[in-house]
Amino acid sequence: MSTSINSDHAARLPAVPMPGNSAGNQYHEPAKIESIVTRLFCVPLPEVLSDAKHGDHTHFQLVTATITLGDGSVGTGYTYTGGKGGHAIKAMIQHDLAPALIGKDGTAVEKVNDFMEWHIHYVGRGGIASFAMSAIDIALWDIRCKQAGEPLWKMAGGAGKDCLAYCGGIDLMFPLDKLLNQIRGYLAKGINAVKIKIGRENLDEDIERIKAVRELIGPNIKFMVDANYSLTVDQAIEAATRFKPYDIAWFEEPTIPDDYQGYARIAEATGMPLAMGENLHTIHEFGYALEQSKLSFIQPDASNCGGITGWLAAAQLSRKYNIPVCSHGMQELHVSLVSAQSNGGWLEVHSFPIDQYTTRPLVVENSRAVAPDDPGTGVTFDWAKLLPYEQK
Amino acid sequence: MSTSINSDHAARLPAVPMPGNSAGNQYHEPAKIESIVTRLFCVPLPEVLSDAKHGDHTHFQLVTATITLGDGSVGTGYTYTGGKGGHAIKAMIQHDLAPALIGKDGTAVEKVNDFMEWHIHYVGRGGIASFAMSAIDIALWDIRCKQAGEPLWKMAGGAGKDCLAYCGGIDLMFPLDKLLNQIRGYLAKGINAVKIKIGRENLDEDIERIKAVRELIGPNIKFMVDANYSLTVDQAIEAATRFKPYDIAWFEEPTIPDDYQGYARIAEATGMPLAMGENLHTIHEFGYALEQSKLSFIQPDASNCGGITGWLAAAQLSRKYNIPVCSHGMQELHVSLVSAQSNGGWLEVHSFPIDQYTTRPLVVENSRAVAPDDPGTGVTFDWAKLLPYEQK
Ligand SMILES: [Mg+2]
Ligand SMILES: [Mg+2]
Repeated sequence: MSTSINSDHAARLPAVPMPGNSAGNQYHEPAKIESIVTRLFCVPLPEVLSDAKHGDHTHFQLVTATITLGDGSVGTGYTYTGGKGGHAIKAMIQHDLAPALIGKDGTAVEKVNDFMEWHIHYVGRGGIASFAMSAIDIALWDIRCKQAGEPLWKMAGGAGKDCLAYCGGIDLMFPLDKLLNQIRGYLAKGINAVKIKIGRENLDEDIERIKAVRELIGPNIKFMVDANYSLTVDQAIEAATRFKPYDIAWFEEPTIPDDYQGYARIAEATGMPLAMGENLHTIHEFGYALEQSKLSFIQPDASNCGGITGWLAAAQLSRKYNIPVCSHGMQELHVSLVSAQSNGGWLEVHSFPIDQYTTRPLVVENSRAVAPDDPGTGVTFDWAKLLPYEQK
Repeated sequence: MSTSINSDHAARLPAVPMPGNSAGNQYHEPAKIESIVTRLFCVPLPEVLSDAKHGDHTHFQLVTATITLGDGSVGTGYTYTGGKGGHAIKAMIQHDLAPALIGKDGTAVEKVNDFMEWHIHYVGRGGIASFAMSAIDIALWDIRCKQAGEPLWKMAGGAGKDCLAYCGGIDLMFPLDKLLNQIRGYLAKGINAVKIKIGRENLDEDIERIKAVRELIGPNIKFMVDANYSLTVDQAIEAATRFKPYDIAWFEEPTIPDDYQGYARIAEATGMPLAMGENLHTIHEFGYALEQSKLSFIQPDASNCGGITGWLAAAQLSRKYNIPVCSHGMQELHVSLVSAQSNGGWLEVHSFPIDQYTTRPLVVENSRAVAPDDPGTGVTFDWAKLLPYEQK
């Protein structure tokens, strides 16, 4: 794939030599997208992980998009899933986005993001389209930061370079002793906040687990719970009421994300701080949630809400509602985004072993996660390690 | 792909011979899904068609799903797009839905639909997932109707077997004489209602076209307009105000479907009847629209709202709000669904040439569209004609 030569510009601008391009005398407009290469990896998890609504996870999917501009700049973006949808995301990048983006100005990141939204709108407005757009957007931000010679935390707000962080597991079906051992592991890493899954068949079992965790961690560690939208509003009100003695910092996704006003009913009935965002894919959905749901925290995920551009739009909106912007998944990237916001909240450190496949595992200092200082997103994949898991 | 043999059931139930299956003594549970075959076709349009928001259409995509149950029953479902997303839809059916559905009871259609929703929820809640689910759901309805020996209109409500119908073109950029000729063609087919695209750069041009069409068709033909959500709320209010002298039956998608309350503002400010639905993919979205948008018509599309099961759920909800349920696209299937509802409204007869690739082009009698009486959905593809357009 290559851009057509614009002879008008070619006459005015100097030719840019392309690395590794034997046709060295061919003109390349510096900012134009010349190629987009997408790859899918299905990476096995070390053990089966379960939550209340998605069932068992046996592997996670990583979809990467590597973009090259006319000046030779290269950036890599990515998205991930819990094991489903990866092939569809790759197909959309390959067949619907890449062909339409070749030749566009890759430095006009927000414009490209807006173009993608409308280009695939009929089959978009969330779902797979949001994941596919995210991978492209992140690749363009990687280029933007590298061209500026700045790390993402500086380019995406610059308010700071570290943030609060908690560890959360996909641990709903872990026996209690295994759950507590996992929590001990979090604390050993220097993290001072933990989250567990709830939503077992019997609420008494959730209470038993919550009680045991709070007894283990003592009063000074922050403690969140996550139902993965498995409860009705009434069930969530009962659960939140029974959670109160255990000083729960937030109750995440008590009910389906679509029931924005249901969230408000839970918050009003119980006073429990609520959090959601991982299932919101468009700025409209963030608008409904912030306007209607009486949330205490919002948790956008740059891998599924339109990339860094989409995440920053959600963050900007959160400031209008005076609540902290947190994150879901992808800690290796979100550490830069959460740290950079004036209202940055908690970084989720989740349990997919992504750190094994990048060159910089998450850095924690004084219980805070520290953003990378390298120019770019700071996320560099170890392709050799990923290769055995590539799906063609 | 085949189900595993359940020896407990095999002992109690008689073996079902499979047509064309050489292993005739292998047991097949009658209701279980044994195979799902999905195909993608990119079918060229006879000419380039344009609207205000999706730009130029050069072909449409048809994604089919053919399901075989253990008793040899076969049904075909499908979805379609305006040219983007087809590869992703096929990938999701092939990699995420089919493997999880093999072995499930294919006669429990609503249960399968519900299973699919949660199975791909993290990458779903609309978008590509809704299209993929629709193809599967329609295939199972095809089997359900064939097994009952009944046509879809009887199985999906049974209130009637014909309905109001209008023709709508993707004609925004047609010169006026070509537009008027197309309208003459609709009327020649016996249709007594027409719709045109609006949303040209200059509102005066829209008004000129609307005026010319109304003068051509006279006062007794119903006349709708469709902006494909290209206007702001304020622009839509101005446009609707200027449309009033031309007796517009409805103003379709004046603004982005996500702005539910914006629709209400347009309706309140102008009294113009509003319609939308083609971009709503989940029952939650239909709920927001019906509750907040002050619509006069709702237009679900079974190809992108979870199939016939999803369409019927939207239809049921529309009765709570006392508005007619219409349809978008797919007239060959929707004729049965709209006819079958007690509050059935207008069938859209759209301009993708699908009738050339099925065995029963739309039947119009006394200006009403007539549903097929064959058992099944009544939509049978001419595979030989589609074959040249298959994408592998
Ligand atoms: Mg969560
Ligand atoms: Mg329309």
